[in-house]
Amino acid sequence: MIRHIVLFTWTEDATAEQKATVAAELRKLPGLIPQLRSYTVGGDAGINQGNYEFAVVADFDDVEDYLVYRDHPQHQAVIAQHIKPIVATRAAVQLRV
Amino acid sequence: MIRHIVLFTWTEDATAEQKATVAAELRKLPGLIPQLRSYTVGGDAGINQGNYEFAVVADFDDVEDYLVYRDHPQHQAVIAQHIKPIVATRAAVQLRV
Repeated sequence: MIRHIVLFTWTEDATAEQKATVAAELRKLPGLIPQLRSYTVGGDAGINQGNYEFAVVADFDDVEDYLVYRDHPQHQAVIAQHIKPIVATRAAVQLRV
Repeated sequence: MIRHIVLFTWTEDATAEQKATVAAELRKLPGLIPQLRSYTVGGDAGINQGNYEFAVVADFDDVEDYLVYRDHPQHQAVIAQHIKPIVATRAAVQLRV
């Protein structure tokens, strides 16, 4: 299995509506990209100081399925239209599980 | 459920042995901390450029169980003895799933 993990911080001027739209748009992807085996998306729970603000954890059967997701036009549209305008920092890892 | 996610980069002088020891020591924790429901630990798969180097994804039934893990002496010992000496950057999120 490939587990794809991304954490984001948002720009200071990002609005609550913009942040909520990122989550809502990403959550449409499992209905559009059948290679997604599991998809966890959401904001930090506020338990600890100094955290990033938003996380995506996506599981795939193999690298090929992950690449379908990574390069999928609907995913790329969410990145271009909703994530890139408000992203400050991004940290990502793909794990072989 | 609470999903705890941490990504790390290591210092340039961190050795392969030191990095492998972090993974090996963390993988002992599920046997010591029964609150851990699922625990995924490992290095980046090398699919994409610019990634962080190491990831931990830990699932718990609730915040209280996550805090047991966070503050557990065996976990804190791994952080102090094996992670802190080689960590360059750290990004974390706790998600309510």
